Amino acid sequence: MKEVLLALAVAWSLGTGLAHAQATDAPAAAAPTPITDADIKGAPTPTPEQKAAGDAAGTLTGNPADIPVSDAKKGLTIQDVVTAVGGNLIATNFVWTLITGFLVMFMQAGFAIVETGLGRAKNANHTMMMNFMVYGVGMAAYWLIGFGIQEGGVGAVANLGGTAPLNSEFAITLFGKSWGLFGQKGAMLGGSTYDVGVMVMFLFQMVFMDTALTIVTGTAAERWRYSAFIISSFVMGALTYPLFANWAWGGGWLATLGSSYGLGHGYADFAGSGVVHSVGGVTALAMAIIIGPRIGKFNRDGSPNAIPGHDITLVLLGCFILAFGWFGFNPGSTLGAALNGNLRISSVAVNTMLAGMAGSFSGMYYMWIRYGKPDASMTGNAFLAGLVAITAPSGFVTPMSSVIIGLIAGVLVCLSCEFVERKLKLDDVVGAISVHGTNGIWGVISVGLFADGKSNYAGAWNGVPGSVTGLFYGDAGQLVAQLVGVATLIGFVFTFSFVVNWIIEIAWGHRVQPKVELGGLDIPEMGALGYPEFVLKDEALTV
Amino acid sequence: MKEVLLALAVAWSLGTGLAHAQATDAPAAAAPTPITDADIKGAPTPTPEQKAAGDAAGTLTGNPADIPVSDAKKGLTIQDVVTAVGGNLIATNFVWTLITGFLVMFMQAGFAIVETGLGRAKNANHTMMMNFMVYGVGMAAYWLIGFGIQEGGVGAVANLGGTAPLNSEFAITLFGKSWGLFGQKGAMLGGSTYDVGVMVMFLFQMVFMDTALTIVTGTAAERWRYSAFIISSFVMGALTYPLFANWAWGGGWLATLGSSYGLGHGYADFAGSGVVHSVGGVTALAMAIIIGPRIGKFNRDGSPNAIPGHDITLVLLGCFILAFGWFGFNPGSTLGAALNGNLRISSVAVNTMLAGMAGSFSGMYYMWIRYGKPDASMTGNAFLAGLVAITAPSGFVTPMSSVIIGLIAGVLVCLSCEFVERKLKLDDVVGAISVHGTNGIWGVISVGLFADGKSNYAGAWNGVPGSVTGLFYGDAGQLVAQLVGVATLIGFVFTFSFVVNWIIEIAWGHRVQPKVELGGLDIPEMGALGYPEFVLKDEALTV
Amino acid sequence: MKEVLLALAVAWSLGTGLAHAQATDAPAAAAPTPITDADIKGAPTPTPEQKAAGDAAGTLTGNPADIPVSDAKKGLTIQDVVTAVGGNLIATNFVWTLITGFLVMFMQAGFAIVETGLGRAKNANHTMMMNFMVYGVGMAAYWLIGFGIQEGGVGAVANLGGTAPLNSEFAITLFGKSWGLFGQKGAMLGGSTYDVGVMVMFLFQMVFMDTALTIVTGTAAERWRYSAFIISSFVMGALTYPLFANWAWGGGWLATLGSSYGLGHGYADFAGSGVVHSVGGVTALAMAIIIGPRIGKFNRDGSPNAIPGHDITLVLLGCFILAFGWFGFNPGSTLGAALNGNLRISSVAVNTMLAGMAGSFSGMYYMWIRYGKPDASMTGNAFLAGLVAITAPSGFVTPMSSVIIGLIAGVLVCLSCEFVERKLKLDDVVGAISVHGTNGIWGVISVGLFADGKSNYAGAWNGVPGSVTGLFYGDAGQLVAQLVGVATLIGFVFTFSFVVNWIIEIAWGHRVQPKVELGGLDIPEMGALGYPEFVLKDEALTV
Repeated sequence: MKEVLLALAVAWSLGTGLAHAQATDAPAAAAPTPITDADIKGAPTPTPEQKAAGDAAGTLTGNPADIPVSDAKKGLTIQDVVTAVGGNLIATNFVWTLITGFLVMFMQAGFAIVETGLGRAKNANHTMMMNFMVYGVGMAAYWLIGFGIQEGGVGAVANLGGTAPLNSEFAITLFGKSWGLFGQKGAMLGGSTYDVGVMVMFLFQMVFMDTALTIVTGTAAERWRYSAFIISSFVMGALTYPLFANWAWGGGWLATLGSSYGLGHGYADFAGSGVVHSVGGVTALAMAIIIGPRIGKFNRDGSPNAIPGHDITLVLLGCFILAFGWFGFNPGSTLGAALNGNLRISSVAVNTMLAGMAGSFSGMYYMWIRYGKPDASMTGNAFLAGLVAITAPSGFVTPMSSVIIGLIAGVLVCLSCEFVERKLKLDDVVGAISVHGTNGIWGVISVGLFADGKSNYAGAWNGVPGSVTGLFYGDAGQLVAQLVGVATLIGFVFTFSFVVNWIIEIAWGHRVQPKVELGGLDIPEMGALGYPEFVLKDEALTV
Repeated sequence: MKEVLLALAVAWSLGTGLAHAQATDAPAAAAPTPITDADIKGAPTPTPEQKAAGDAAGTLTGNPADIPVSDAKKGLTIQDVVTAVGGNLIATNFVWTLITGFLVMFMQAGFAIVETGLGRAKNANHTMMMNFMVYGVGMAAYWLIGFGIQEGGVGAVANLGGTAPLNSEFAITLFGKSWGLFGQKGAMLGGSTYDVGVMVMFLFQMVFMDTALTIVTGTAAERWRYSAFIISSFVMGALTYPLFANWAWGGGWLATLGSSYGLGHGYADFAGSGVVHSVGGVTALAMAIIIGPRIGKFNRDGSPNAIPGHDITLVLLGCFILAFGWFGFNPGSTLGAALNGNLRISSVAVNTMLAGMAGSFSGMYYMWIRYGKPDASMTGNAFLAGLVAITAPSGFVTPMSSVIIGLIAGVLVCLSCEFVERKLKLDDVVGAISVHGTNGIWGVISVGLFADGKSNYAGAWNGVPGSVTGLFYGDAGQLVAQLVGVATLIGFVFTFSFVVNWIIEIAWGHRVQPKVELGGLDIPEMGALGYPEFVLKDEALTV
Repeated sequence: MKEVLLALAVAWSLGTGLAHAQATDAPAAAAPTPITDADIKGAPTPTPEQKAAGDAAGTLTGNPADIPVSDAKKGLTIQDVVTAVGGNLIATNFVWTLITGFLVMFMQAGFAIVETGLGRAKNANHTMMMNFMVYGVGMAAYWLIGFGIQEGGVGAVANLGGTAPLNSEFAITLFGKSWGLFGQKGAMLGGSTYDVGVMVMFLFQMVFMDTALTIVTGTAAERWRYSAFIISSFVMGALTYPLFANWAWGGGWLATLGSSYGLGHGYADFAGSGVVHSVGGVTALAMAIIIGPRIGKFNRDGSPNAIPGHDITLVLLGCFILAFGWFGFNPGSTLGAALNGNLRISSVAVNTMLAGMAGSFSGMYYMWIRYGKPDASMTGNAFLAGLVAITAPSGFVTPMSSVIIGLIAGVLVCLSCEFVERKLKLDDVVGAISVHGTNGIWGVISVGLFADGKSNYAGAWNGVPGSVTGLFYGDAGQLVAQLVGVATLIGFVFTFSFVVNWIIEIAWGHRVQPKVELGGLDIPEMGALGYPEFVLKDEALTV
């Protein structure tokens, strides 16, 4: 009986056992108490009366009674709790990625009014409509073809708890290594890709793709046939963008340069300075060459004329919308917020805003010193240039590096605009080649210089353990990987875009008639003026 | 031996025991280790030194030390953890529902500039002010009266962990079944409805209601007395909208058609093609009849004249803002993101964007083929029509069905606009009757056709277990429930709106004087021009 | 003894006790079962086949397999689960605070077009550029200097799981109590402040600071030298704003009036009616005095002339953008959503929208009754006045009180505008002194009147246990604390701002030449017109 009493006493006093029994000998240390299902079920919840009385403070709402129970007879179990923890984790990541994706989608509005504002009033309907429909044209191409090519073999994205159906990458073996070329699942989101995780990926990647497409409309505005724009944009959303994006983000060969060839962590482009902005900017360059300058842009001696935008308010409002959307673009590119190093989203967001600020400053002062006035259009472009440049490194660098990257971007965009206009004799209505092309490349390179090795996204990047580290922090291989990416952008994307748009030029024709261009594209192309009631100055209708 | 048996019995009764005891005889299998309070308390946390040194990677931040402890002396317990899990779950749902609600609120800005841009410059101040104040007028009506009618008896919304105070629905018994007619709690958010869950409901439902109200201002613009607009909108926010919304969403009779009469899952309107858009569009139809066409809209022979909008840039910018807000409208209508099938928010979001895209395509090509140009205004409207149509089915259908629904919507809006203008001889300034009324009804019907039975929101919808399934997937009853909803929209909402606004017409008068209309409403109604400094073409002031 | 050992072994290995043993004697009650590591590891997860087949319903995604495992050999442990709970909690708070911060940033766009729209077309480029660059100028000042001063000693912010590196407040001892004056960490976000929690703080506080700065540009528009604006704004972002914000929010002396002197909970300003709006409005007052009225604003007899804004559409669109952003401003000021009473974010959001609504009503009707028309500009300003006034009390009051506070604000802003213009003879282009200054002070005072003591943010505010409670609910001390804050705003902030800007006036000069002002600032200051193609009425160029 003594034994039984002892057993009971031990059990009673501690609800646990030997460790506790020992604890009584060493009262300083608390003895561990086992946890039972009763502890779970007994977690305190408000009474129905309390709930019906209202919870003004918000301290009763959100309690153990809200956790879904798998077996009502059993009540709440530890496994329900564990399931809820996993569910909460992925839900938080869904919320983050979806909302940041929505912000990125809203950038379309920013691009639309920046481009329209930098164009002339006689083309406002046409420029707005290109920017409006590029959203739909790109989405159609991507839904039908592009998404599958880009992401069809990306595999399971841990932060989204899934995307397992995206399991088919077409790869060839070269030099004894696998080279992923394109994905093969996900067309029209049918079959197994009718999946909640895949849907997040589609939404987020779609709006990125559309960002790249809308860059081109800015360069070729005020002279692009609307029908040709649709064809060209469709091809870009179906093929050009998805191919490069597959190589960089979809498990393709650029991403595996690290794991296959030891070049740092492979091509690292956090949110797409290269994938999105350079692909857009380089395609814009090809289009600028093919479509030629607007009538009146260059004099007979080759000297350029400034053609000011018709609405600076729209331009700068658009820049703010873009900066707002960029807080989706860069921080959202983690595809998650919870655990696995994802809290660095805050650092990404701060880097993004600092680089934009730095770009606007250096660009504004460059113009002010060089031309005597703080030009609004170029200040806006320099702001965007800083944002473009920080897009690739935003996840890998310090705030100070972000400021430096932005300061360089702000001057670079001015120099690049001058170079494109005066040396290349190209007409880029909004400066997109310089903002997105030049500074996209600068952003890709800057990863290879400034990445500080302090980030940690689930312990690896592109399958290479550890953190992306640039030359200034000791990894020259990373810079090489970045330069391979840049070479591919210029070598492949430019060539491919040029050939595609050259074929469209031959088969269909990119450019409107001179008469149409001089009178404005709105009536002949779209059937209605942008501003039918406002009186415009005479030159607005002819130059 | 008795003692041993007792000990064994204890062990067995506690869910472990014998099997575990045996496990020690079979060392191949790891023995389950009980979890104690020491495991909870011992979960690893960073030291103060580590924290003060900064967490650049974000891998130390967010750890067990952040979980609130109910009893500081005890330290962290399993019950604290379980409480935190329930708290996190509801917090994630609050974050999701609030932010998506904010996005919906922002749609007011989109409506404002779409409607103003499609009107003429001489009425810009008046059209903007109607769109601006409809937000406040509707909110006042809803706070005082409407919310209680709509949601006063909705009961506890699980995703929000509460809203328990909304527990009073007025119902009558008819044919042996309960028919809920209106709610009776929540006026002015006082008493027990001063509750954090109720507040989320109020915010989210308020911005939906305001969306319905702002639809009417588009149809009746450019001739509506500002004071009459305020009265009419107040009644709509206090009664018209809340009544139908109660029947569909607040626990009223349309929602219980499934549980009471076996008609599918009852009237199913995921995000309000019917509740919001058709109620708005049908009321707009009543207003168009009562207020009559603008001077100059129809010739003596009844043929209509086109009156182009004054600013296409505003119109398409507004469409983008609306599309951005629609990512709140539809995906937010789960009222949650975590667990219970809520991750389908991603599917809802993708369906939404696909249908908008499809609508813009089919509408644009319809206009292009029929009239020779890809009209911007109608392309924008077709885009919105796709979004309106997918609103009801977005939570229940596949991506492919969403594209089909959108394609149909884009053509339907064009046909409907022609019908309203040419057959009904009504003047709908922005096409709201067709965009929201016609396509709202199309959306409601499409649920009854395309719902695929794959969704699963906590296992039931409108109290009927299983998933909403349409005719094409085998449930004809669902289509019947949808058609009952459509009949109610046309039979009740139209009649009620017509009578209310006809009384206002008699008692107060909806329409401004012809002189005011011809000269523009801005000075006589609002006291200031919208654009006092810009020179307008002569006809802008008279037609 | 063997039995005892066995009993102990069982007890130890499984852990339970008398209550459980007794349960076997009372079979009606289920016996508690100990939870083991096998329960955790055995929590159900989908098979790879299920995952690859796609999860259309979203019921398989987000499960125990998504919880990061610290030791792959061990598999999932309870400590991993607890770590994930803490991680989810902070992640949800990060998501909330970052996204609401993004919304606040977007308010810059709203301010930009409200101010530009209320100005004249000839100054549109200049007004937009001031509003555009104030974002960058403020951010540069804050990153270099201001953030450290404001937040360098704020200590660990629990909702963000960290910010521990911000641990250095400079304080003096006065009357036996510590008076915090400014922080000393965080400059350029270097060293230990390269931390994910600090980054959230920086982002959120930065956009608040920028809001204060952009208020001043509205008052001094249409005559401020662009270079002087940059200098003035830099000083305000580096010193003026951060100092007061440190005293109110950064652990400085105003916040400790409660804990040190028993004045309620110390100066309580939930989201910054005082810290942000009054600091902006009071500085705007100082600038209005120094820079003087626009040419033509006042007649020789001192009577004022109305100078209407050039684009009402822009103004009201901007008001909507501001209201959208305010849903970040106020609800985001909890810095978290999960647990600790943070669910009151919904109440904060509803209070915010109700007060805006109430303000727009009372202001509109005041104007309508007094001047015969529902003036759009003043209705917009009254809407903003309601939002400004509710900013401080939004976290502490009922919906009904919010409506009352807003109703008063809407009239107050009209009276204040009249006073500023007719009595003070000051020229405030957009009414910012009245909207932000007067109503900011009203908001601060209203906390001391209407706070209802029902809120509960982790049990304390400013280190004083319990809830902020105003005079009408029994705590007169709180009102005194608020009045001390108001006195500081008027006594210190006004004086400091006046002296700083007076020095700039002497050393550099704030005002453009009369010729520049009459012709418009766009060409002389910025080098380009805002609307180069539109024909403006003659007076637009001269008045």
